[in-house]
Amino acid sequence: MSLNELSSIMLPLVETELHRQVNILDERHTVSFYDMLAYHMGWNGEGAGPDTQGKRIRSLLLLLTCASCNGDWMLALPASAAVELVHNFSLVHDDIQDNSPKRRGRDAVWKKWGMPQGINTGDALFVLSNLAVLDLARSFPAETVIKSANILHTACLNLTRGQYLDISYERLDEVTIEDYWMMVSDKTAALLSACCSLGAILSETDVETQDAYRNFGHYLGLAFQVQDDFLGVWGDSALTGKSSESDLLSGKKSLPVLFGLEKRGSFAERWKKGPLNPDEVSGMAEQLSTEGGRLYTMEASDQMMDLALQSLRLADPKSEASEALFELTNKLLSREA
Amino acid sequence: MSLNELSSIMLPLVETELHRQVNILDERHTVSFYDMLAYHMGWNGEGAGPDTQGKRIRSLLLLLTCASCNGDWMLALPASAAVELVHNFSLVHDDIQDNSPKRRGRDAVWKKWGMPQGINTGDALFVLSNLAVLDLARSFPAETVIKSANILHTACLNLTRGQYLDISYERLDEVTIEDYWMMVSDKTAALLSACCSLGAILSETDVETQDAYRNFGHYLGLAFQVQDDFLGVWGDSALTGKSSESDLLSGKKSLPVLFGLEKRGSFAERWKKGPLNPDEVSGMAEQLSTEGGRLYTMEASDQMMDLALQSLRLADPKSEASEALFELTNKLLSREA
Repeated sequence: MSLNELSSIMLPLVETELHRQVNILDERHTVSFYDMLAYHMGWNGEGAGPDTQGKRIRSLLLLLTCASCNGDWMLALPASAAVELVHNFSLVHDDIQDNSPKRRGRDAVWKKWGMPQGINTGDALFVLSNLAVLDLARSFPAETVIKSANILHTACLNLTRGQYLDISYERLDEVTIEDYWMMVSDKTAALLSACCSLGAILSETDVETQDAYRNFGHYLGLAFQVQDDFLGVWGDSALTGKSSESDLLSGKKSLPVLFGLEKRGSFAERWKKGPLNPDEVSGMAEQLSTEGGRLYTMEASDQMMDLALQSLRLADPKSEASEALFELTNKLLSREA
Repeated sequence: MSLNELSSIMLPLVETELHRQVNILDERHTVSFYDMLAYHMGWNGEGAGPDTQGKRIRSLLLLLTCASCNGDWMLALPASAAVELVHNFSLVHDDIQDNSPKRRGRDAVWKKWGMPQGINTGDALFVLSNLAVLDLARSFPAETVIKSANILHTACLNLTRGQYLDISYERLDEVTIEDYWMMVSDKTAALLSACCSLGAILSETDVETQDAYRNFGHYLGLAFQVQDDFLGVWGDSALTGKSSESDLLSGKKSLPVLFGLEKRGSFAERWKKGPLNPDEVSGMAEQLSTEGGRLYTMEASDQMMDLALQSLRLADPKSEASEALFELTNKLLSREA
């Protein structure tokens, strides 16, 4: 079955499950607390709808993995809500930590209700993810529920460690490419890897297959991040017109930048003098290409993509979900903006 | 056995268990991330030691409850670490939300490492509490672990709802005494109630006894909070010298203040004109007494204390821990500063 066909069946059920989990809150006159969470989830407020909900990629990845192991993915819905809630908790706190006023085209929670309520809204989404994963007990043996909760919480611990590294790197002069891989493994790959692990475990497939899916998610996460870094320097919106979207302007220590710094050429020389001006952005992107940064980043992305696809082939996806899972992988790894 | 005797056995084991749970982090070159958490826990940095660790009251309450039900409290240590980690997560985020630069006499985490790392340190302590409660699986059936995790997460959800209300009340003109009870039930009583619930459940006692302990924790929390509010207006440090510690100065909508506002007398009239000056504090405390606020608050505290003790007697604590549990209750409810 194609990705479109399966998504159109799965995603409405994910949304219903998310509502079910978040609705626990809608009691005892705390309607406006619920509203803050629902706003971030894209369910209410101005512009509510698909554009402000995000793509629910983590939920989809979990369910497609479960289905590809011949599991009953409908039973895994509470876990698919849990990973999405974790992702959204981290976005709410990220926006505060990065001082980003916008999320999915509208005011971030903290911008709308203030920083204290922003932190608390993130905390609440996080708690709801904990409760959602325990809700697997409706359909699975208690041991499986505990194993699933452990995987989710361990991914969250890695997430906080990745966040620690990311914030620390901003102030560090000497960040190496090795440091970069450590940070993105934790910050981006850990949760995607957990999604695939959970999907496989809840299908009750064998341990080798579970491991293969976990590795698939890990490399998929790394490839996804490297591609994001590539687009942050050489993507259309980074280069043309909206140079404000260039990572070179924000000073982010992305993979291409770290490559350039390790080269110690003209790129590094200018970078170390302080923040770039908007009119320097395209020239610096060009300089980084000349020094080999563009090719290096593309190769790193291809390498991670190959490792992801190798793991996926080893996992040997079955059933009608197999096609959709390969399609989702290709879609994630061939974004152009 | 006396509280002192039992505490001196239990608390070092709680501290060891907390170290065991937090040490999960001390891997892969992230020593300084670990340091942020350990600093907040009072284990390192200037002034590290008992004074900066807090009293671990929640751990103690859980273990004493377990022992009073003839349970093997040593097996409940992971849960005692979990509740303490939740409490500390909430303090780290509270300090950011309240813009409080100090915690236990030294710089708060956010003041020392910045707001982004502060939020993240709180998140990490929270994740560790989730992992700690699952660690009960070493000694308990999987069903008991899930039940315990559910109780802990539900308390956390109430905690975030209480925090939402607390932040909202700051800006609201019309907060009623009914609103107050809803907020403190969530913000203060929910976690203490969960401690007692968990202690009882992990002793494998009957459901009636579990309920009695849960109620005991709930009323203990309410009594504790009301007493805190009393001391915030008429305690020694609020009235004499350090009027900066008076809740009247910070503008906190505590129970006595809400009583005064509902009276609509001279106290309310002055309050509504805006923040008090330090030299008005003792006069306003006196005025609130005259209008009946002092008596009202004492009676509310006594009433909650009676309900707590009634529940505790119904729970009928057994074993040598019984004496210590009554002693802890009396100690908590007869603080003078």
